Amino acid sequence: MLLVEPSRSTLITDSRYVFQAQEEVSGAKVHIAKHGLLRAATEALRRRGRSRVAYAPGHVSVAQNATLRALGGTQVRWVNGGDAIERLRAVKDAGELALMREAATLISEVFAAVLPKVRPGISEISLAAEIEYAIKKMGGSGPSFETIVASGARSAWAHARPTSKQLRKNELVVLDHGAILRGYCSDLTRTVFLGRAPAKVRQLYRAVLEAQAAAREAIRPGVKAGAVDAAARGTLKRHKLAQYFTHSTGHGLGIEVHEMPRLGRGEETVLEEGMVVTIEPGVYIEGLGGIRIEDDVVVTSNGAEDLTSASREFLEL
Amino acid sequence: MLLVEPSRSTLITDSRYVFQAQEEVSGAKVHIAKHGLLRAATEALRRRGRSRVAYAPGHVSVAQNATLRALGGTQVRWVNGGDAIERLRAVKDAGELALMREAATLISEVFAAVLPKVRPGISEISLAAEIEYAIKKMGGSGPSFETIVASGARSAWAHARPTSKQLRKNELVVLDHGAILRGYCSDLTRTVFLGRAPAKVRQLYRAVLEAQAAAREAIRPGVKAGAVDAAARGTLKRHKLAQYFTHSTGHGLGIEVHEMPRLGRGEETVLEEGMVVTIEPGVYIEGLGGIRIEDDVVVTSNGAEDLTSASREFLEL
Repeated sequence: MLLVEPSRSTLITDSRYVFQAQEEVSGAKVHIAKHGLLRAATEALRRRGRSRVAYAPGHVSVAQNATLRALGGTQVRWVNGGDAIERLRAVKDAGELALMREAATLISEVFAAVLPKVRPGISEISLAAEIEYAIKKMGGSGPSFETIVASGARSAWAHARPTSKQLRKNELVVLDHGAILRGYCSDLTRTVFLGRAPAKVRQLYRAVLEAQAAAREAIRPGVKAGAVDAAARGTLKRHKLAQYFTHSTGHGLGIEVHEMPRLGRGEETVLEEGMVVTIEPGVYIEGLGGIRIEDDVVVTSNGAEDLTSASREFLEL
Repeated sequence: MLLVEPSRSTLITDSRYVFQAQEEVSGAKVHIAKHGLLRAATEALRRRGRSRVAYAPGHVSVAQNATLRALGGTQVRWVNGGDAIERLRAVKDAGELALMREAATLISEVFAAVLPKVRPGISEISLAAEIEYAIKKMGGSGPSFETIVASGARSAWAHARPTSKQLRKNELVVLDHGAILRGYCSDLTRTVFLGRAPAKVRQLYRAVLEAQAAAREAIRPGVKAGAVDAAARGTLKRHKLAQYFTHSTGHGLGIEVHEMPRLGRGEETVLEEGMVVTIEPGVYIEGLGGIRIEDDVVVTSNGAEDLTSASREFLEL
């Protein structure tokens, strides 16, 4: 738990993390709580005469909030801080961007390293295991979410969990994977075909790629998040594919894999320089399969700049 | 989101999971929400004339709760359900126990499979990658928490994250790992020594093992969770090691890796048949290192029955 005061910050943790906190924490005092983090935080605030403290309501449960209220009593009032923290976190500084660039490079390299294993006969879950193994072996601290490997009919499930199903010839395979590197997340999706793809599938791939390019083009400071979604959705609509695009165009990315802003229909958040978002339109057609193409970009004064670097060319393996 | 009513249950999810829900959900109707899960739930309840619904306060954020209140208005009142769900979940039925036994067997087999790789020269993070790879290759859906591999001085950090530090001869290595199998978690810790351990280290290992046995012996229906913790802590106290035992003796295990009951100091929860808990005393001595031994057990009418099956003999590799 991090307490931020005008003149100092305090990281509150418990006895399991004594040594780790000493080694890893800089810029904050470390306090080891003996009787729970919430109690330690409230007592520290009371000692310092703090009477009003904001908390992040998206990260505090109703049960924790009840404990905070009871502990604080009339002396320390815990107040709902709205999305202040999330808004601060949405815009990355130069140091954060350098880390996110590394995390995005790592997952791009992992994709390249694992590609030779994307062959008929390997199971989805084995391939997911190879990906997560490569993430750690290549320097990441782990996957930023549960890796998605979805093949054949299952690729039409936008968030399929990998199963023991084996990859087969003449199937689409969606690989959606991300790495955490020094605390920051990346998120990359590529869709490949095992064998020579039918014209229909290539056509779908081109349409999704075009939708992604339209979203990328729409990104610049001052534009509403909803306008980026509309650009991707409009492109797919022209291809008569809008009904198969069943999710948002993208989401903010940072310490968590889903941060502000959401690039969804009608979203009013205004893009700012330094925001990092995914652009990931997709089409999912039951029976035929799914195609999604996802990159991570940073919003710059010149528009979107790619952080991920894997080729977007349609791979027929 | 799961809505439980006297006559039916409804799983509410979004369009990304349409096909998956069709395939995987049984025993509940599936509802695909168009405008958010909370809105869909509230509208379904309103249509059915439900005026009072309990939610699990440990799993609902303050922000979500505010949305629920606003959506429900005066017609659907969302009320704090306390720990009713957690208490229900603490006691496992026969079907759940069969799955947990499988998950525990899996992680015991993963430990055995990875043991030959626990050698000087491999990095902590590579070993963690091997463990998580084995979990998936051997049939699990993934790790139930971020695998801990802590070697040498770092083994004195009870919850160390694996780093690029290489294992060296004459070091303690703590391996704390768990698998998810068909939705249920396991959690197993073994501590090994690379080389021939000094007498002092063997002595510490025996003390921790004795503390674990004392906790296991203390487990039976009707006993308070705190009494199990006291059994482990008392044993370590007799060895003058109580000050180095910096965490609780164990925790409930199930769909989540931390469930009720907590086997901690003074815990009043009464153990019941069908509860599954970890028993994991440890000692952590700065400079020397740490030793933890953890198994998963089910509370039966005859006392604790082990689910994990890895040998607890002190391994000098």
